[in-house]
Amino acid sequence: MKPKQFDAIIIGGGVMGCSIAYQLSKRKKKVLLLEKNQIGCEASSAAAGMLGVQAELEAHDPLFELAKSSRALFSSLASEIKALTHIDIELIHNGQLKMAQNEEQVESLKAIGDWQRSIGEEAIWLDREALLNLEPCLSENLHGALYFPKEGQVYAPNLTQGFAKASALLGTKIREYCEVQSLILSHHTVQGVRTLLGDFYAETIIVATGAWSGQWLPQELQQKQPLYPVKGEAFSLTTHAPFIKRTLFTKGCYIVPKRGGQLLVGATMHAHTFDKSVSLQGLSSLMNKAKEILPIIETATMDRFWSGIRPMTQDGFPYLGEHPDIDRLFIATGHYRNGILLSPITGQLIAEMVTDQRLSVPLNDFRINRHIDTQEVLT
Amino acid sequence: MKPKQFDAIIIGGGVMGCSIAYQLSKRKKKVLLLEKNQIGCEASSAAAGMLGVQAELEAHDPLFELAKSSRALFSSLASEIKALTHIDIELIHNGQLKMAQNEEQVESLKAIGDWQRSIGEEAIWLDREALLNLEPCLSENLHGALYFPKEGQVYAPNLTQGFAKASALLGTKIREYCEVQSLILSHHTVQGVRTLLGDFYAETIIVATGAWSGQWLPQELQQKQPLYPVKGEAFSLTTHAPFIKRTLFTKGCYIVPKRGGQLLVGATMHAHTFDKSVSLQGLSSLMNKAKEILPIIETATMDRFWSGIRPMTQDGFPYLGEHPDIDRLFIATGHYRNGILLSPITGQLIAEMVTDQRLSVPLNDFRINRHIDTQEVLT
Amino acid sequence: MKPKQFDAIIIGGGVMGCSIAYQLSKRKKKVLLLEKNQIGCEASSAAAGMLGVQAELEAHDPLFELAKSSRALFSSLASEIKALTHIDIELIHNGQLKMAQNEEQVESLKAIGDWQRSIGEEAIWLDREALLNLEPCLSENLHGALYFPKEGQVYAPNLTQGFAKASALLGTKIREYCEVQSLILSHHTVQGVRTLLGDFYAETIIVATGAWSGQWLPQELQQKQPLYPVKGEAFSLTTHAPFIKRTLFTKGCYIVPKRGGQLLVGATMHAHTFDKSVSLQGLSSLMNKAKEILPIIETATMDRFWSGIRPMTQDGFPYLGEHPDIDRLFIATGHYRNGILLSPITGQLIAEMVTDQRLSVPLNDFRINRHIDTQEVLT
Amino acid sequence: MKPKQFDAIIIGGGVMGCSIAYQLSKRKKKVLLLEKNQIGCEASSAAAGMLGVQAELEAHDPLFELAKSSRALFSSLASEIKALTHIDIELIHNGQLKMAQNEEQVESLKAIGDWQRSIGEEAIWLDREALLNLEPCLSENLHGALYFPKEGQVYAPNLTQGFAKASALLGTKIREYCEVQSLILSHHTVQGVRTLLGDFYAETIIVATGAWSGQWLPQELQQKQPLYPVKGEAFSLTTHAPFIKRTLFTKGCYIVPKRGGQLLVGATMHAHTFDKSVSLQGLSSLMNKAKEILPIIETATMDRFWSGIRPMTQDGFPYLGEHPDIDRLFIATGHYRNGILLSPITGQLIAEMVTDQRLSVPLNDFRINRHIDTQEVLT
Repeated sequence: MKPKQFDAIIIGGGVMGCSIAYQLSKRKKKVLLLEKNQIGCEASSAAAGMLGVQAELEAHDPLFELAKSSRALFSSLASEIKALTHIDIELIHNGQLKMAQNEEQVESLKAIGDWQRSIGEEAIWLDREALLNLEPCLSENLHGALYFPKEGQVYAPNLTQGFAKASALLGTKIREYCEVQSLILSHHTVQGVRTLLGDFYAETIIVATGAWSGQWLPQELQQKQPLYPVKGEAFSLTTHAPFIKRTLFTKGCYIVPKRGGQLLVGATMHAHTFDKSVSLQGLSSLMNKAKEILPIIETATMDRFWSGIRPMTQDGFPYLGEHPDIDRLFIATGHYRNGILLSPITGQLIAEMVTDQRLSVPLNDFRINRHIDTQEVLT
Repeated sequence: MKPKQFDAIIIGGGVMGCSIAYQLSKRKKKVLLLEKNQIGCEASSAAAGMLGVQAELEAHDPLFELAKSSRALFSSLASEIKALTHIDIELIHNGQLKMAQNEEQVESLKAIGDWQRSIGEEAIWLDREALLNLEPCLSENLHGALYFPKEGQVYAPNLTQGFAKASALLGTKIREYCEVQSLILSHHTVQGVRTLLGDFYAETIIVATGAWSGQWLPQELQQKQPLYPVKGEAFSLTTHAPFIKRTLFTKGCYIVPKRGGQLLVGATMHAHTFDKSVSLQGLSSLMNKAKEILPIIETATMDRFWSGIRPMTQDGFPYLGEHPDIDRLFIATGHYRNGILLSPITGQLIAEMVTDQRLSVPLNDFRINRHIDTQEVLT
Repeated sequence: MKPKQFDAIIIGGGVMGCSIAYQLSKRKKKVLLLEKNQIGCEASSAAAGMLGVQAELEAHDPLFELAKSSRALFSSLASEIKALTHIDIELIHNGQLKMAQNEEQVESLKAIGDWQRSIGEEAIWLDREALLNLEPCLSENLHGALYFPKEGQVYAPNLTQGFAKASALLGTKIREYCEVQSLILSHHTVQGVRTLLGDFYAETIIVATGAWSGQWLPQELQQKQPLYPVKGEAFSLTTHAPFIKRTLFTKGCYIVPKRGGQLLVGATMHAHTFDKSVSLQGLSSLMNKAKEILPIIETATMDRFWSGIRPMTQDGFPYLGEHPDIDRLFIATGHYRNGILLSPITGQLIAEMVTDQRLSVPLNDFRINRHIDTQEVLT
Repeated sequence: MKPKQFDAIIIGGGVMGCSIAYQLSKRKKKVLLLEKNQIGCEASSAAAGMLGVQAELEAHDPLFELAKSSRALFSSLASEIKALTHIDIELIHNGQLKMAQNEEQVESLKAIGDWQRSIGEEAIWLDREALLNLEPCLSENLHGALYFPKEGQVYAPNLTQGFAKASALLGTKIREYCEVQSLILSHHTVQGVRTLLGDFYAETIIVATGAWSGQWLPQELQQKQPLYPVKGEAFSLTTHAPFIKRTLFTKGCYIVPKRGGQLLVGATMHAHTFDKSVSLQGLSSLMNKAKEILPIIETATMDRFWSGIRPMTQDGFPYLGEHPDIDRLFIATGHYRNGILLSPITGQLIAEMVTDQRLSVPLNDFRINRHIDTQEVLT
């Protein structure tokens, strides 16, 4: 058997792979990160960077708890990355508003506020008047909003670059433009990876290839309950004076105020495609939704449009754990719209598993061969 | 007095300046063309390249006759430019459809068809069924269309480059990045121009600076009835299979099928600004209009968006002629949405004036100090 | 066993895959072409489009004969593609000059001219004076050149797009953003392919994935005598007046005059990398070489720089044929610097093999399990 | 006479115009800033952002003193701008090395070090060994360097945006895409400006149009001793690990290490052109010079290239003061390679003049109608 050059090889240089590399490097592991194109070139850079635990997730389930745990890591993470790399991930806690456009949504949002407060989260119901006092440019047709004052955001491309650069400074070897073709196995245990530029050997292999992870999952699982890609289209605008201070959230549309008067608007959902083109319909529908909640946005200047391909599972929970049939092969994927938010805890948990540390969060609900009730799969 | 180095200096390297340079060069004149940025970098490249005499102009007036004369020049022009420069201006006669979205428009379009046929133009009324037979992807909500089978289009950037390169081959000296600050006059006669890179002298000066021409017009005229800029926003799409063969025309929106499955959609109208940014509202409104007439367009892939700044006069007619107060100063501007279409005849007429040839078209209605009835100015 | 939806599936939408699709479609085969990104997005678009049989190849061997056969197909191909798709591949026969920079190269080039003439090729030796008469801007330090007056060029991106569009019009189904993970085999015969977007079945599978083809070759072959990537960097310039009419060729550098005064300069060689970044050294060395042979080029305006990743075999001959161990799996790769030139004959030969037609050119020297004398492998 | 809407109108939205706007706004003046394109779109964004008092200026003259005064303002300025606008101008004091490539330069640099120390500046001579200890990647062929440990740099685009945004927050009205055609005068006193979008009136007009300022200078002066444009070409590279910590300075080339491993390399000098194209020769010569002093730079990845047009006077001193013939017309131009460095003091001095405050620095040597000895003009 070949000598192992590395403690761990990570396949995929998105925000997950880089966060895992960072956590393993902090634990003194010798890591090789292989990326088929460039660090952060897919969904990790397309993301708006919202840390929307309360606005994005609508039920109190294990995913909500996982997201909360991850959110709690950002403050110290921002400091660590800044100290190590001088990269500013632009963490701010500017709050988020989840808006009601009709009375049905009012009821639903109030109910969400109730259970969130019951578990200690801050969630304030604002009626129309209170809402317009807070954000005077919003549409007068809104019926109110649930306000999460502590929610925040980061600048997504900087988070991925920050993880990567910090890892490199701690010893991780990063190799871009190096695509993995296949695993090298021996007796159901991973030994290494085969690439078009040669073979590499390690004790542990970790797959973090986002929407492109299906090929590394158990084949039977992928046939029956496939991980699948969901394209999200988005666009950005520039304004001379900021229209809003807080992130706006409504059905099928969010508006995130960034530095320098920039606004990010996202995101559509198109399943089962890796095609990153942006359609007229995708862009047009986002524009119409954005105008409904923030009419003045129509005066803003168009900047650019883009899309990202996000990995989705049948029950909406990520896969975090060891491959059921192959020893020392770990997988972290399926984070869908919450990749930026979940990246710190994912890095930490995978590093804990790899190094046999006690897990900071129970992962039973995220294991790869969990039972998914096919009657209830998401559509 | 300084010796004159040139027969003519043209200020402005857009489609007008280049067409004039071409016609003067053909007449053996020694020409200097001064452009403050790059050849064709403003409205000339932003244009969709429609040659829409019948679709664009709605009255039988001198402008209609001027446009007809210009349209008639394109075939031989395309051949000349191809022969001299190998540049293909992509002239095709694919026809245009001016669509009715309600019964009022049906009546109005039928009336336009009547007078156009009465003066020998081809204009065919198509009811909904005939229209959908011709272009099956169009919306079923349309009420019919007036069809101009002989109308055509060119690729606008190639037309300007073609004029410029042909002129250069015939001896015109083209100087980019050379902005004219002021005219050098003697006894109410132009002698030359002053630029930040030195002075140049010529027998004749011709201003063809599009929306930036106001400073060269008589000051009193510009105060009372100013030439003003009108921004037009546009965008392009790509499709794998072409949705339409003919150019579509409706109120506030046109869709032009280009080579390789590209579609150009234009154009908004925003007066009194030189700001070339594209607003969310501008882009969004064009998208919505395009979807109304061609629903399938929503599946097309977004390519890019841009704008151009077009020169508009108070009566909608261009200015073509000599300055009323300064001898040997000629002006050609105010072509608004018809610059590409009118460029061949403009080049020819200015060259005829400069060389004292008989004019191919009477220009009384386009002279600079014509009477404009301020009761009837366009809004 | 699954029913076969297609006669053939082609993996890879570069110039080879598209040429093969075109030839199979012409033979009425039902074809699916799968491309992991976009048609022609790798080396096919990075190429300069030279058809340099005589300038590029330095020995009279089977590759020379293959290249000659391919070159002979371009004229009718250009017409066919133009007629079907309106795409102009910009085929011109402007000649090529292979230059001598010292007396040793003079001798070597004269010898090449001798054997080329002996087999009926036109190759004219020009001494310095004759050379400068033909191309007056060349350096006076050159020692002469071998002139191939009949050699030509195409515009590479248009060739790939032309093949693709013609194939689509003849019935080929093209699917972009669809990456093949693995082959579906049964008893050593291909049945189909597995992708992240589902499985597809066909009678025949053809691999045409350029520098990324190593994973589909016999594993033992790839271990011992690997196909490997060679990056080539290039850049383009614009000029107002053309400096040269013919393509210039020298050791490590070519300069190709394109339409509209553009010059393409290429290409470096960096083996064993898929990284498409352009280094200072790569760009700088090309510039210095270009200045040596065409000093006036230093006045030209920089346009852009890029690179392409080309597939290289150990003996420099492409792989064209059936996989030695898997039935109905065909491979076409390893064309290195000659991909554009060899694409017509490659498409034709693979189509002949797939449809059991008589081969227009003997392929023994290009078969995949040919003997490569490891004493003589290229470096 | 028209009522004055503004205390001051500034023509030109580069770093000078924005710095002046900032200082006038701080002094409670009502300011209109007119920019013909976009804020900071010309030389201000092309600059490398060095604050090179000691490295750039080679004599102890009034310009050296002006530069020193300006350098001293950056620390508080960075804090003010950050506090007001959240924009980080990225001020760091990483030091500069002015390198000797031969013994003649050694002597010359030692002499510079002597007089700089004599006036209290820190300037340390490093022989080859000391130099390589400090910056191990430098060429071993260097003969030593003069080290200015306190010199620093900013990120130039952020400085201009910071001034602009701070001004806007303090009340300055900024109007982009608004080109001034001419001044409105009455009895040799400025009253306002004429633009294509209307007339604007103010008590004071300030011209800060960089290389485009010649048209506003006294005509006789501009004829005899013209302000003229000097193009500077530059390029940037990216590196994974930083090669240098300090800015490198040599004859005709500087290399500035920026955040994230980026390197800026500049700048050529081409007088008498506004053409912003980058030539092969310009780029190639910078590359060769950079390789001479920092050989490892050849492994860095090319990022992009660009140029900026800088304003130069006949004696190399800027023009800072009132127009000799027109009252209340102030001019600030001619800063050549030192625009970023001199922008804070320029803003302060012009604001002091406009508001009749005592000048912080004597300006006699920078007045517009100073005597320039034409025997000694720079070439």
